[in-house]
Amino acid sequence: MQMEKHSEIFNEIDDIVHPKSVAIVGDSPKGRLYWLKSIVESGFKGTIYPVNPNVDSALGLKFYKSLLDVPGDVDLVIVRVPAAVVPDVVKESVAKKAKAVVVFSSGFSEKDEEGAELEKKLVQIVKGTRTRIIGPNCMGIYCPESKISFRPDTSTEPGPVGFISQSGGHAINFSIAGRAIGFRFSKVFSYGNACDLDSSDFLEYLAEDEKTKVIGMYIEGTKNGERLVRALKKAAETKPVVVWKGGRSEAGARAAASHTGSLAGSTEIWNAVFKQTGVVPVRGFEELLDTISVFVFCPSTTSRNVGLVSISGGSSVSNTDFCVEEGLNVPELSQEIKDRIGEFVQKMGTSVKNPLDLAGSYNYPGVLENVLGIVGEDRRIGSIILEVQVHYTSLIEKLNGTPVSSIIYGGMLEGCKKVRDESNKPVLVILPRTHYEKELARVRKLFINEGFPIFPSVSSAARALHKAIQYYEQKRVRESY
Amino acid sequence: MQMEKHSEIFNEIDDIVHPKSVAIVGDSPKGRLYWLKSIVESGFKGTIYPVNPNVDSALGLKFYKSLLDVPGDVDLVIVRVPAAVVPDVVKESVAKKAKAVVVFSSGFSEKDEEGAELEKKLVQIVKGTRTRIIGPNCMGIYCPESKISFRPDTSTEPGPVGFISQSGGHAINFSIAGRAIGFRFSKVFSYGNACDLDSSDFLEYLAEDEKTKVIGMYIEGTKNGERLVRALKKAAETKPVVVWKGGRSEAGARAAASHTGSLAGSTEIWNAVFKQTGVVPVRGFEELLDTISVFVFCPSTTSRNVGLVSISGGSSVSNTDFCVEEGLNVPELSQEIKDRIGEFVQKMGTSVKNPLDLAGSYNYPGVLENVLGIVGEDRRIGSIILEVQVHYTSLIEKLNGTPVSSIIYGGMLEGCKKVRDESNKPVLVILPRTHYEKELARVRKLFINEGFPIFPSVSSAARALHKAIQYYEQKRVRESY
Repeated sequence: MQMEKHSEIFNEIDDIVHPKSVAIVGDSPKGRLYWLKSIVESGFKGTIYPVNPNVDSALGLKFYKSLLDVPGDVDLVIVRVPAAVVPDVVKESVAKKAKAVVVFSSGFSEKDEEGAELEKKLVQIVKGTRTRIIGPNCMGIYCPESKISFRPDTSTEPGPVGFISQSGGHAINFSIAGRAIGFRFSKVFSYGNACDLDSSDFLEYLAEDEKTKVIGMYIEGTKNGERLVRALKKAAETKPVVVWKGGRSEAGARAAASHTGSLAGSTEIWNAVFKQTGVVPVRGFEELLDTISVFVFCPSTTSRNVGLVSISGGSSVSNTDFCVEEGLNVPELSQEIKDRIGEFVQKMGTSVKNPLDLAGSYNYPGVLENVLGIVGEDRRIGSIILEVQVHYTSLIEKLNGTPVSSIIYGGMLEGCKKVRDESNKPVLVILPRTHYEKELARVRKLFINEGFPIFPSVSSAARALHKAIQYYEQKRVRESY
Repeated sequence: MQMEKHSEIFNEIDDIVHPKSVAIVGDSPKGRLYWLKSIVESGFKGTIYPVNPNVDSALGLKFYKSLLDVPGDVDLVIVRVPAAVVPDVVKESVAKKAKAVVVFSSGFSEKDEEGAELEKKLVQIVKGTRTRIIGPNCMGIYCPESKISFRPDTSTEPGPVGFISQSGGHAINFSIAGRAIGFRFSKVFSYGNACDLDSSDFLEYLAEDEKTKVIGMYIEGTKNGERLVRALKKAAETKPVVVWKGGRSEAGARAAASHTGSLAGSTEIWNAVFKQTGVVPVRGFEELLDTISVFVFCPSTTSRNVGLVSISGGSSVSNTDFCVEEGLNVPELSQEIKDRIGEFVQKMGTSVKNPLDLAGSYNYPGVLENVLGIVGEDRRIGSIILEVQVHYTSLIEKLNGTPVSSIIYGGMLEGCKKVRDESNKPVLVILPRTHYEKELARVRKLFINEGFPIFPSVSSAARALHKAIQYYEQKRVRESY
């Protein structure tokens, strides 16, 4: 068996995210022991060294007066002390031969000139040493594989999604909201002001990381544009890279300057970079979640032809609009397929051409299981978008007075699985708003547990699907050279 | 006091939506008694006459063999019999001097030539009589004031939102999803193929109806474009009219033809109509809900200047982008206001210029109550967008081990009320996805119960707000002539 040779930066960061010991400097009960609880409750199996001269013990752990008092080796240091004290802690981390220091503290280049000077000092301290800095002004690392996290409530189960975020808030929001729609993560990095390790380093790492199948990214700016372009290009050659650029507007760029001290750069330049590197650009948080959903939960496709399934004619019409406006097609099904579907669907008030308006047949046990499977077999169709309006099924249950919904959703799920697993085509499930909120939550979980992507509207699903199609097309073109 | 004189069509439709008696023809236990249950469970206080020769009684109500057997007057007839039998029922309705027949049955012009002929027959039957037809191929009327509905699970509480929909599905979805975000309805009309009463009639009615403060509309096409233009213009002069056009794409237009038999018309023509008439165009269901939310729950404004409040710097940056890209501004607050806010907010890691990144201060009891109120007082600011990420507050509660969330959300609500009720400015509340789903539902209800509009993302809120601003600007220009 041939050993894969990894780059130096890969090995360096891979060591950082798999620490044997973590020191947390500056946590206190007044600060809610945020970091200590995050590491403890994430189930970290290595040694934890809390450091704070004013605390004796908490959570059953002894606190050390200083990092230098810690008896054993320290691989990773997380720092939450006032900005002015951070240089001392970084010096001690270097003395302890720590692999990295996550500087959570803010008050650096994002604040003022003085803070910028302080930040330069940090860089000088680690220069020429084997200690790297993540931050300052960041949340650092979430790696469920090694049970470390920047929150005590992230999933402890590892998975294929990698995320790199200049914003700590977005790193948290993505980890938490992503968890709600079924994402599991390989590594999430929040890197803030990026005084040492920058987006390009994390990109190169995740590109080489076999555990990471898709990379998401939130970026405001970078100090080394050329290197970022190379890193984006290289990463996009190996796996999908979905990039959300913050600070596109002038006012947003001003906000970025006081957020991470970033020079946001012009939108034109960034758009050119996205095009040239083959990454998938998205405009915001919702698009980021939706687009990564397609990459994570769907087989790849380059077909723009969608089979649209819903319960109502009005939805059929407007869902077709959304698909077409996002660059997809809704072609008529082949005669053979229409005939086969016709056997399961009532004649009156329905339409089985595509879009499929199933009306009353939608909630008839067995119909969707068969219809979805048959549509999936049509060679003209590359993927299926299924709109699930739970209030119709809930009403049937209410009117019948018998629990039919488990049969109906069970059949729906079987149909979706046929399309995905037998026809190897994407199935995108739409769950629009309704006042049957509990039922909506229940049905959402049903689909998420079976690994289907969930979207709030056909329009958002169609946009995400089209972005994935464009990525796979470019990939095919690249690979045909 | 001067009596307002209403138009003939107003009086006609107002009589139809306030029936003293309703006959339901063709309902049966096999059809789940859908219509009978809808009327009964909506709490209709008048007389209900179920008609079906094959049923003796159900729900404690006697069934009649034919409409002509009904002893008393019949104001409104709802028909669910096979298409071929509908003409006979309409004839009987005319004989009973019914004010209107809602034809739920499909199989008319949306189906084929034969169906189109049958539909013409219906029109001939009522011609010259005082009986009007709604439909065929429609859901008819939902009017909580008179306790009639096309669903047994719509809210029975009346309110300011009127809706006109060519699609029965969208009429249902809007009534159900709107209810979930706090809408209450004056009248909702689903009119399907519009063989007799058309969108223009319902528009003229809702324009004159004092109970209706804002009109939503889903339309696929019309047989009388000139009259629709006049009706849209007149309605938009009296109140906001938010219009969603289905069948914009070629494939969508084809679907519309098999849905309601509509000729969808070109997008260019429709766009010109929207511009010329001063209505507010929206692209889909989500935009419809969001835009109507602003009209229903916010004071009017023509200021594009938004105060953006969130817990994180990353959100501040990207939320600013969304606002600017939707046509709004995020101006820096005045020095006086910034100074006043500074008294409540920690210095480190926050930014109070606008966008406001409150970081840890966000969840400090009392902070948001004061900060929101003060931002609302800034004369440079026309409205506030508040992003509520429940997972931060939930985590504070978890870390503290004490129930602080009621204090935090209570303060937030007080702050929002100050802005809306004392400064008379819109407050838009954003509740993004999270895996704290129960808490999200709870917090959503808190804000909805206090009459605040809820949005899934800043981008959707900003778009809706901008659409409302454009409407109010046009209105001001019109009124200044």
